[in-house]
Amino acid sequence: MNVDRILPTDEAHDLLDLATELADRELAPRAAGFEQRAEFPREVLRTLGRAGLLGLPYPEEHGGAAQPYEVYLQVLEILASRWLAVAEAVSVHTLSCYPLAQFGTDEQRKLLPDMIGGELLGAYCLSEPQGGSDAAALTTRAVRDGDSYVVTGTKAWITHARVADFYNIFCRTGGPGPKGISCLLADRATPGITPQAAERTMGLHASPVAQIAFDDARVPADRLVGGEGRGFAIAMSALDSGRLGIAACAVGLAQAALDYAVGYARERQQFGRAIIEFQGLGFILADAATQIAAARALTLHAARLRDAGRPYSIEAAKAKLFATDVAMRVTTDAVQVLGGAGYVADHPVERYMREAKVLQIVEGTNQIQRLVISRALARP
Amino acid sequence: MNVDRILPTDEAHDLLDLATELADRELAPRAAGFEQRAEFPREVLRTLGRAGLLGLPYPEEHGGAAQPYEVYLQVLEILASRWLAVAEAVSVHTLSCYPLAQFGTDEQRKLLPDMIGGELLGAYCLSEPQGGSDAAALTTRAVRDGDSYVVTGTKAWITHARVADFYNIFCRTGGPGPKGISCLLADRATPGITPQAAERTMGLHASPVAQIAFDDARVPADRLVGGEGRGFAIAMSALDSGRLGIAACAVGLAQAALDYAVGYARERQQFGRAIIEFQGLGFILADAATQIAAARALTLHAARLRDAGRPYSIEAAKAKLFATDVAMRVTTDAVQVLGGAGYVADHPVERYMREAKVLQIVEGTNQIQRLVISRALARP
Amino acid sequence: MNVDRILPTDEAHDLLDLATELADRELAPRAAGFEQRAEFPREVLRTLGRAGLLGLPYPEEHGGAAQPYEVYLQVLEILASRWLAVAEAVSVHTLSCYPLAQFGTDEQRKLLPDMIGGELLGAYCLSEPQGGSDAAALTTRAVRDGDSYVVTGTKAWITHARVADFYNIFCRTGGPGPKGISCLLADRATPGITPQAAERTMGLHASPVAQIAFDDARVPADRLVGGEGRGFAIAMSALDSGRLGIAACAVGLAQAALDYAVGYARERQQFGRAIIEFQGLGFILADAATQIAAARALTLHAARLRDAGRPYSIEAAKAKLFATDVAMRVTTDAVQVLGGAGYVADHPVERYMREAKVLQIVEGTNQIQRLVISRALARP
Amino acid sequence: MNVDRILPTDEAHDLLDLATELADRELAPRAAGFEQRAEFPREVLRTLGRAGLLGLPYPEEHGGAAQPYEVYLQVLEILASRWLAVAEAVSVHTLSCYPLAQFGTDEQRKLLPDMIGGELLGAYCLSEPQGGSDAAALTTRAVRDGDSYVVTGTKAWITHARVADFYNIFCRTGGPGPKGISCLLADRATPGITPQAAERTMGLHASPVAQIAFDDARVPADRLVGGEGRGFAIAMSALDSGRLGIAACAVGLAQAALDYAVGYARERQQFGRAIIEFQGLGFILADAATQIAAARALTLHAARLRDAGRPYSIEAAKAKLFATDVAMRVTTDAVQVLGGAGYVADHPVERYMREAKVLQIVEGTNQIQRLVISRALARP
Repeated sequence: MNVDRILPTDEAHDLLDLATELADRELAPRAAGFEQRAEFPREVLRTLGRAGLLGLPYPEEHGGAAQPYEVYLQVLEILASRWLAVAEAVSVHTLSCYPLAQFGTDEQRKLLPDMIGGELLGAYCLSEPQGGSDAAALTTRAVRDGDSYVVTGTKAWITHARVADFYNIFCRTGGPGPKGISCLLADRATPGITPQAAERTMGLHASPVAQIAFDDARVPADRLVGGEGRGFAIAMSALDSGRLGIAACAVGLAQAALDYAVGYARERQQFGRAIIEFQGLGFILADAATQIAAARALTLHAARLRDAGRPYSIEAAKAKLFATDVAMRVTTDAVQVLGGAGYVADHPVERYMREAKVLQIVEGTNQIQRLVISRALARP
Repeated sequence: MNVDRILPTDEAHDLLDLATELADRELAPRAAGFEQRAEFPREVLRTLGRAGLLGLPYPEEHGGAAQPYEVYLQVLEILASRWLAVAEAVSVHTLSCYPLAQFGTDEQRKLLPDMIGGELLGAYCLSEPQGGSDAAALTTRAVRDGDSYVVTGTKAWITHARVADFYNIFCRTGGPGPKGISCLLADRATPGITPQAAERTMGLHASPVAQIAFDDARVPADRLVGGEGRGFAIAMSALDSGRLGIAACAVGLAQAALDYAVGYARERQQFGRAIIEFQGLGFILADAATQIAAARALTLHAARLRDAGRPYSIEAAKAKLFATDVAMRVTTDAVQVLGGAGYVADHPVERYMREAKVLQIVEGTNQIQRLVISRALARP
Repeated sequence: MNVDRILPTDEAHDLLDLATELADRELAPRAAGFEQRAEFPREVLRTLGRAGLLGLPYPEEHGGAAQPYEVYLQVLEILASRWLAVAEAVSVHTLSCYPLAQFGTDEQRKLLPDMIGGELLGAYCLSEPQGGSDAAALTTRAVRDGDSYVVTGTKAWITHARVADFYNIFCRTGGPGPKGISCLLADRATPGITPQAAERTMGLHASPVAQIAFDDARVPADRLVGGEGRGFAIAMSALDSGRLGIAACAVGLAQAALDYAVGYARERQQFGRAIIEFQGLGFILADAATQIAAARALTLHAARLRDAGRPYSIEAAKAKLFATDVAMRVTTDAVQVLGGAGYVADHPVERYMREAKVLQIVEGTNQIQRLVISRALARP
Repeated sequence: MNVDRILPTDEAHDLLDLATELADRELAPRAAGFEQRAEFPREVLRTLGRAGLLGLPYPEEHGGAAQPYEVYLQVLEILASRWLAVAEAVSVHTLSCYPLAQFGTDEQRKLLPDMIGGELLGAYCLSEPQGGSDAAALTTRAVRDGDSYVVTGTKAWITHARVADFYNIFCRTGGPGPKGISCLLADRATPGITPQAAERTMGLHASPVAQIAFDDARVPADRLVGGEGRGFAIAMSALDSGRLGIAACAVGLAQAALDYAVGYARERQQFGRAIIEFQGLGFILADAATQIAAARALTLHAARLRDAGRPYSIEAAKAKLFATDVAMRVTTDAVQVLGGAGYVADHPVERYMREAKVLQIVEGTNQIQRLVISRALARP
């Protein structure tokens, strides 16, 4: 489908054209196969990195493209419309570059070009088995011992857990509550860091999540990002950006589902007519198109607030909530439009539906988003 | 509530400030009383006209403010958040200036400054008793007779029917179908034009609709706008703009309902706490805030497409559909948040709910919008 | 519309036929006029009382018809489908007979025949201005003084406040909390009981609610129902029955709206066909019919549990929640099906929509119902 | 969860107890494993057959239990709450016995005891690749040749295609349209009948659907059920019963999802409390419980109409539509309640969600149900 976009620059146009071309060539033909084999597309991410698509919002001095979030998110959306796992990988990777880019020392930032270039893939280790929504209660502990922090605990639901080259670890260096949390950047090869078996998820098989066990893992003290006790602030700040990323992924996924369903409904004949001509189906598609357009507009509005240096945290929560709810509804409806055909893997819509569900859960469940928004409303 | 707006110019900022000030001073204090008395606020519209708010999107040469729709619609939204009837009057009046501004001759356009200045109030006469959604089937007939057209028929659901100074009349000068329709601009005083009794509507009592009977009404032939047979194209083109206006009205109304409900829920105590702190209510408000933000973003996206000279008809249909459905849901929920208090006229939310319903119906019912959108999807 | 009912007895069939006949003859022709004039149909209630429809669930020894709730609720539904205000009056009146019927002494019950016969109309005085949902916090106080209780305080949202012949007053005779509450039965003529002006409600104008001021009102001590401290238990027990009544009213109202919309959509032609043949409208009506059928079935299931002497409180909460949400949705959609015609008082659907809203609020808002249900789920 | 059921007989109580016991012992422990291995539980069905659960609604003379549908459907619901694939197999098998039981000759019915006893498993061959919703347009052809019909064509979406012992084949023996369709009962071993590879479905892996190719398959002419040209009427009549079966399956699946989510939400602690105590989650569960109760009540109402020999086709369509939409919503929400845990196969809710989707599609998509219902409304 042709999406009517209003872009800020010609450069943005070129970037979206590039993203579309890469997505059509590198992502679309591989998605079904990799998902079925549960194979992580490491090379595809390297290709995106070489094309400059892994560090879009970061400064050029660190190897980024200095693009506004408004543009970055539309690239992400395009990638997601061809293969969600890759778009989500880009979003998570971008997020995992964020602590260093925003809060790192010059010395630490020397890693950034390789991260942004796609040579080093990142994982973002915040959630824990017992504290999904209550991040401030995390229990993974890091104890200073000479030039190192010794990390013990378990992280859960970690994207790239088994394929990442570096980990952002949010861990407790101080007392209870948000102020006792710090952020460490650890290399994959660190002894005592052991990714566990991949979770058997409903979708996103090509990019599985897993737990990571930290068992007296020694992380050099100079890998502390932003100072002791800054970890929670870093995590929350990154989360706002991460929510925008998920929102964009959701828009792309929903658009893919709509496009496929529309294509099918134009071709499929029943009772002597293309089924899209029956209002019963046509109106489902019209509602889907409307909701996707609203989700995209809301997401980009939040991005523009961020780009303008204005508060955007609440708008990001709204965008994440709305766009992922739309993705769930639209993908479920897309299966319905195809009928029996929608329920089998010959068509991608059943995969889209399985993938959509995770978006309502990650980066703060949609209940947490509602909590964030309602608390903002409650403040006088 | 503070809405986070991104405006294109400083002038737009000033304009929104002005609109807010006028809305607070002239609209808000009068709304409840005028609505209760079913009294049309003619003077308020004059005030808005003098302040330059009645011709925002039209060229300065005709007395307009040459503002992009993006800005005009946000003014409309602000007015609607204080008093829907006035905002809708502004939207309808702006619409009724559109045929002349866009398709009129220079001679005809001499009327524009008085129209835009608020001295002459317009009505837009398209719908008929038998043809609500099927405009191309209209039956009001205009027969050329010397220097005049003689108009016969009945128009229905006409805003300003009883208070307008001029009427845009869409009538049949040729054969059946859209190509036989023309647009005439008639003065109020024309003999044979008789507004009927006001309809007893559920809401918008201050700005009632009515039928208008045309009984051999002679309209000078030089009041034909855009040539014979151009009427349907004019009407459809105006409708696209009108849909954006209704979308903006819906956003403003929904925002007013949310703001009121939030204010109430912060103050109202039950079970020892402000009720906004109960997730059962807080999440309703969070969802409302999210949907309003999405509706606003979608509406402004469609407006920016229009402002950029790009096709926007389908996006306008989406905006109208989405924003008015949101307004219906949010106003209904706002009553719920107030409980019994919401059901009585001591608080404005019951009025908001009654008003919201009409927005799902005017300028094409939301079923017609879905038809417009699904047909666009069906086109290969 | 013909509703496919499964009734337990032939007597029930006769009763429903009688109710239908009375509703068609006495209610339907009066509804619009009385509502417009905000006139309470006292005579209509007397007629229903004489026909035996005001005490259906009560024992024959007290003048009732000893009907199961399953039958009583279907009578109520039929009445509501012709005129909600009357059905709600019957429901409230039935509720106001409940404390005496269930907990009264033989002496007290001597009043029942006149109440059930419709000579004496009752009001049920539980809610207060500050404690809508939090009934256990009520503050109206009754102090024993000789042979009387002296009652002081204010009750709010009282149906029949201005027309009742007797009041069930829930008031505090003891300490804070539910155990300090008692139930008194007061005559209308009691000095110090002053109904206030009718609330200006969105709908149900023929049966307005009002506050009642109690200012040292002396109620004879032998009008204490069920003993001191039993009030809250009586109120909660009555509430369960009351919720079933509201659910039945909601089903009837929704059915009326559907029937009217179906009739209109069969007749109304657009684009050359009856609009019910367009799936875009037809599916709205199909969904409405489906939801109404589900609401009715759920309500009657809860009633049958009650009739079988089994716990039904949670099922009553579900029925009230579901049926009233359905009524709100269906009436709003019915207006939409009529389009502009739906928005004016020439057709009853705009009134149905205004009336539906109150049902989501009374006898415990739908948020309170969700609380009741979720707490039951939370219990191990 | 304890469901409050009102059962017609003590025998029904015993039957439901038996079904619960068998479901707990034979189904629940096997479901996850068989689904993961995509292994059809042929033995489990034999066990159910021996226990008398495969022919509940059929007369005792044919080996059935002569139970009303009201009871049969509640057995089905219980089975579905432990393992949907088995319940659906029972529903489909029961359906495949229907043509013979209802329309078969005495000679033909001699097969029934083995069918009902579970020795012979049935498949119901109606759908075709090109005619999902438009059954009357089917193209599989059967040509009379001596004592046989020679069948050619392809059937699609056939449950038990690869494991059935007999097939009900709906095929064209005459001209176009419904009147040219007949029903044949074929043995599995018939040369020319070739089940194809199992479809790769999103769920229900233990009971996959597949196409069946008919390539000059000779079916004895005495296997014609009900006479030439009666096939469509048989299919439609069976479909009404089949829809009730699917509705009951949907209720059971939704109940299973709710029960699991409630159990989890009672245990899972976040922010220092069991998450069920947060209204944000508790109200989701309350809505789910309410909708399930409504779906069950509606389904049983339709069943009781059938049991009473009254028309129930439209009510069956409502029940199928409503219950399966509820199942989709509730299972999707159940995953949400578990958060990340809900997205992995360690908990059954992700499977429930994948399974729910097919119920909105089979036995007539929910769009077809809406069509059936709206057409009934359109009839004067």
